[in-house]
Amino acid sequence: MPDNFADKLAATIIARQSQVCVGLDPRLDRMPPSLVERYREAPRKGCGCGRHEIGACFEEFGVAIIDAVAPHAVAIKLQLACFEQYGPPGIKAFKHLCKRAAKAGLIVIADAKRGDIGISAAAYSAAFIGRPQGFDGEIDGFNADALTVNPLFGSDGMQPFIDDCQKYGAGIFVLVKTSNPGSAALQDLIVMAGPDSGGETAGASGAFGGNPSKYYEKVASLADKWGAGLIGESGYSSVGAVIGATHPETLATLRQALPHTPFLLPGYGAQGAGAADVAPAIDSSGLGALVTASRSIIYAGAGEDFAGRAAEAAERMRVELWQANRGNG
Amino acid sequence: MPDNFADKLAATIIARQSQVCVGLDPRLDRMPPSLVERYREAPRKGCGCGRHEIGACFEEFGVAIIDAVAPHAVAIKLQLACFEQYGPPGIKAFKHLCKRAAKAGLIVIADAKRGDIGISAAAYSAAFIGRPQGFDGEIDGFNADALTVNPLFGSDGMQPFIDDCQKYGAGIFVLVKTSNPGSAALQDLIVMAGPDSGGETAGASGAFGGNPSKYYEKVASLADKWGAGLIGESGYSSVGAVIGATHPETLATLRQALPHTPFLLPGYGAQGAGAADVAPAIDSSGLGALVTASRSIIYAGAGEDFAGRAAEAAERMRVELWQANRGNG
Repeated sequence: MPDNFADKLAATIIARQSQVCVGLDPRLDRMPPSLVERYREAPRKGCGCGRHEIGACFEEFGVAIIDAVAPHAVAIKLQLACFEQYGPPGIKAFKHLCKRAAKAGLIVIADAKRGDIGISAAAYSAAFIGRPQGFDGEIDGFNADALTVNPLFGSDGMQPFIDDCQKYGAGIFVLVKTSNPGSAALQDLIVMAGPDSGGETAGASGAFGGNPSKYYEKVASLADKWGAGLIGESGYSSVGAVIGATHPETLATLRQALPHTPFLLPGYGAQGAGAADVAPAIDSSGLGALVTASRSIIYAGAGEDFAGRAAEAAERMRVELWQANRGNG
Repeated sequence: MPDNFADKLAATIIARQSQVCVGLDPRLDRMPPSLVERYREAPRKGCGCGRHEIGACFEEFGVAIIDAVAPHAVAIKLQLACFEQYGPPGIKAFKHLCKRAAKAGLIVIADAKRGDIGISAAAYSAAFIGRPQGFDGEIDGFNADALTVNPLFGSDGMQPFIDDCQKYGAGIFVLVKTSNPGSAALQDLIVMAGPDSGGETAGASGAFGGNPSKYYEKVASLADKWGAGLIGESGYSSVGAVIGATHPETLATLRQALPHTPFLLPGYGAQGAGAADVAPAIDSSGLGALVTASRSIIYAGAGEDFAGRAAEAAERMRVELWQANRGNG
């Protein structure tokens, strides 16, 4: 029987006394100038546009960050967009860093926000948390522990991801309420159950106790339902929810409605949320949430000691969070 | 001044008398056995798992399909999931096929359904329709003509894509109503304007004339708004909408509400929709929609003549659609 993702996450949080998830979002214009310069001057492969060297630069940067933050963090969240824009060399760097982070004992979250239907959803799931079909059976994909997914397609679109969570002991984090200011436009709409939605939405019997509710609460109820069969011994499910830490008022409501759902909380640090803001998401054992920071950690230093500065920033965040958020019960 | 995507699309539809968009969704278990066998037996690169050979197999298959359907189709829609699951070699095949399709005179649509916020949204846009940042200025990304995008994040999440449409003469197709049966759960919810949504949603003044409306109608109103600055001489905008052809009843309503929005209509053929079902989306000149079919074309034949069979299937679809859907006015 495969491990349960939620249990692996819970055990790692307790063992490290940390709720820190480091977001690895490499940008050429934010990385240490001396590192970038070295790759800029390197002999160019391929067409000469520098794509291969940028991929290699991201790889070196990422390895240094991963190794530095590994003792302080629980998880690393790799932002696919940053890698994908450099084509095959970018994806090669992403793949290498997934492997490196796993080797460093970190939980690997592919922040790809994928979502689709039918065979396409199945292929995305295979790519990140399942196993793609090879010539003679299954082969390795990116082998992440978990993937962020976009719920817009509904339950049939989510099923392949849920199946792979079961089959491979993986996890997903469903986008419930994103951290950007504009998220209100479509996520905060007040909704009634639609005439065609049948039993698909939680509706009046859902975790929020009746209509009307906000759109993101409907998504949250579905995430709760999708994760019902994946609850581990820790009491948490392998189907989690992404909720911007920039919306502290919603965290308490969602935590109460979704007692089994691990939350992935972006928006800490550079986006403005602090340790007290995330407290409602965390239980008396320190479980229940991973708190993500990217820029404030990976770009903490721009000199030769950038990795050391990242380690310090991660440790500072670990202590801040753990001191504020243990013994909540 | 860059070309306008919508005008390029309109000109190609008229020139070829075709509304056909061929969906290229390669699957190892559906491709011609003789082709797959040849790559299975080839000497293996890398770790030996076959990933490189599968990428090369997809490339050969895709080139044959592209060249065969080019005279009959307007556009090719490449499903990213199918390629991404094979890592860097899969992305290499995708990139090669984008270039090949453009060379064959087809409009290239990356069916990636991407969406995110801030720098991540900007990086996805750069990857597919914009230009990534290189060491010394902009470099080439995948250079697709258009990208499918997931609207969940709201206007600030969409802005980088809209900016690149303007800057590079590219297009986006916003997911409005997907073709799967489960799409109702979250897309058909009856919504009221949320308290925080301010001017972001079309609300009472939108194209659907007031509350309550369905969630996908709110998304459609936003797509209309996002595309308002990108309307070309054809009268259509470079911001289009994805609407499942499996929901013919919604097409007429959406067409009336969104007179400037080109529709991308998946679900033709294998998913059950026919030429009459898409008629409401198409204007009296034959413009207004691209109709997508994947399996019924690319897997029309499983023998050595698979490309010829695909060409025949594409031509049959072209004639069916054009005969049913010109002179609608």
